[in-house]
Amino acid sequence: MNSPMIVLFTDFGLHGPYVGQMKAVLVQAAPALPIIDLLHDAPAFDALASAHLLAAYAPSFPPGTVFLCVVDPGVGDARRKPVMVQVDGRWFVGPDNGLFDVVAARGQAVQWWEISWRPDVLSASFHGRDLFAPVAARLARGESPPGVKMPARKAAAGDYAAVLYIDHFGNAITGLRAAQLDSQAKLKVGDHTLSHARTFSAVAPGQAFWYENANGLVEIAVNQGAAARTLGIAAADTVLIVARP
Amino acid sequence: MNSPMIVLFTDFGLHGPYVGQMKAVLVQAAPALPIIDLLHDAPAFDALASAHLLAAYAPSFPPGTVFLCVVDPGVGDARRKPVMVQVDGRWFVGPDNGLFDVVAARGQAVQWWEISWRPDVLSASFHGRDLFAPVAARLARGESPPGVKMPARKAAAGDYAAVLYIDHFGNAITGLRAAQLDSQAKLKVGDHTLSHARTFSAVAPGQAFWYENANGLVEIAVNQGAAARTLGIAAADTVLIVARP
Amino acid sequence: MNSPMIVLFTDFGLHGPYVGQMKAVLVQAAPALPIIDLLHDAPAFDALASAHLLAAYAPSFPPGTVFLCVVDPGVGDARRKPVMVQVDGRWFVGPDNGLFDVVAARGQAVQWWEISWRPDVLSASFHGRDLFAPVAARLARGESPPGVKMPARKAAAGDYAAVLYIDHFGNAITGLRAAQLDSQAKLKVGDHTLSHARTFSAVAPGQAFWYENANGLVEIAVNQGAAARTLGIAAADTVLIVARP
Repeated sequence: MNSPMIVLFTDFGLHGPYVGQMKAVLVQAAPALPIIDLLHDAPAFDALASAHLLAAYAPSFPPGTVFLCVVDPGVGDARRKPVMVQVDGRWFVGPDNGLFDVVAARGQAVQWWEISWRPDVLSASFHGRDLFAPVAARLARGESPPGVKMPARKAAAGDYAAVLYIDHFGNAITGLRAAQLDSQAKLKVGDHTLSHARTFSAVAPGQAFWYENANGLVEIAVNQGAAARTLGIAAADTVLIVARP
Repeated sequence: MNSPMIVLFTDFGLHGPYVGQMKAVLVQAAPALPIIDLLHDAPAFDALASAHLLAAYAPSFPPGTVFLCVVDPGVGDARRKPVMVQVDGRWFVGPDNGLFDVVAARGQAVQWWEISWRPDVLSASFHGRDLFAPVAARLARGESPPGVKMPARKAAAGDYAAVLYIDHFGNAITGLRAAQLDSQAKLKVGDHTLSHARTFSAVAPGQAFWYENANGLVEIAVNQGAAARTLGIAAADTVLIVARP
Repeated sequence: MNSPMIVLFTDFGLHGPYVGQMKAVLVQAAPALPIIDLLHDAPAFDALASAHLLAAYAPSFPPGTVFLCVVDPGVGDARRKPVMVQVDGRWFVGPDNGLFDVVAARGQAVQWWEISWRPDVLSASFHGRDLFAPVAARLARGESPPGVKMPARKAAAGDYAAVLYIDHFGNAITGLRAAQLDSQAKLKVGDHTLSHARTFSAVAPGQAFWYENANGLVEIAVNQGAAARTLGIAAADTVLIVARP
């Protein structure tokens, strides 16, 4: 069996010292476990959009994976609880602000715990390093969750008809799952109406289209171009389904 | 003997989930092997410029290293073949679009294979994760190449008289190898004519010059300055050799 | 006991090939040791600001940690000596240009060595890869420092009343240690006068304040906002302590 991975999903940015400080805690507390940087520019301050991205990426990781997730605008606010969620064998550690609601709602076997463990020193602003990383390491080592079971919750598992993220190539990743759409569907974003194509090379250079990306989400792209700039699309823009046969 | 390294060379960008998803495949398929991020902002959609960078960096890595290379504007196009190339004991895995032509042309012992293996699920747009990463892991584990030998090919090993890459400091890395130039040579880029210096501190602050960088390429720099901004240089600009004694 | 970590602190930028090339040396020379990217956008060409950041981050790493530090505008200048410094059990390897003066001045047990070892091939511009990385690997493997003891030096351990770094969220990290300030103190940066708060959620959305960040430094922030943009703050701006009860 593979040793479990620890997967980082944050809005810390790649620059700056925060990711490195969190990893330093992890390599001490869970030596030799692989640590994967999945996303460090998750939509900042936007737990909802981040939740839809996380739910799209999580299923391709093996059971046992521990996701250490920090999109945490409410850090320092006593009402924001730290949680551990187990969804179909994968662990999610972070703030209970909606970030895990989508992955949990789509899971079969789901359990929530409030983290009751506290470190000797807890900074006011960096719970990722001081609280969530040590807990993630414990779960990755196979220890039981250091917390208190929370009641089961019902949450909608629906899609999010908006742009979640503009990638390096200028493609616009949406919160719509392609499997929910007919390939005849047309999408409208801003003034643009887009048809489906299976892949980039199926349309002419410069043409915009939507397709099912490698994580099952609807993505808006331009062959050999940058959709975000060409179409004037930005994160949080609404996406309309204008024709669903 | 050291375990082989897997070296990543892509145009995915550091931001976004693509590098992490590819690494998740690698740590499962080739546990405990070091994975090195060499370049994730290779010239996007530009296999030629990328090929010259790759050829400059590859020789400093030990034999056995597996380079997983994805600069792949033609992904999804059936004419673009996935390949494995062995050059002097190092492996290169990626698309056959010119990306490996320079390193292969400069090698002594070179063999090409077309990848015939296919995963159970192959996304339309992310062959780096679905096809190339599993193959790279197999080669790193010492397995034989899962493919079909291709005929030997002849390719020019010449230099590329253009700016390949602007680095973090604003230095302009060219596709010219310094060993091919006399140190008396002058270079012209835009309206600027540049003389050679051995190192930054050999010229006055603010002065532009060319020098042999740490990978053997001609690089255009300004002491204590950013050459790209000062001289108005951008990637793909032509570099002329104006005086070669 | 944990195996020692190697921690990277550079101004190389995350983009480009330099970090990867340095890591390739490390994984060959010190296999299986964790390598942590702490900061790769340290204030470029600014050893003083970098020194204050490094001194703030270093104490949270365990003894035995080897910091490989490259902020090295004088590379290639014969007057700039390569050094190893041991401070309270942690190692620092890099150029002797002020980068280690703050961490050394604040340490209890401090020793300096000039690096006398030289590699077979030393490039003019990339001592991080060719000289400092192999030395860092030797120290991490537990070998004795390959160099010559330098005389003890006295240096001021004072704070730096300036902005060192603007982080991903737009927070402005200063060179003032919060423990030296009374929480009634007010700070002035540009035209703005700022009071203390313990954490973001203690002030109204949009309000600016200063607080002790998770590394003990005074940081200027705006709740749910980006202080640097809102207040017009940039790296190197002076910070005044206007009221110290």
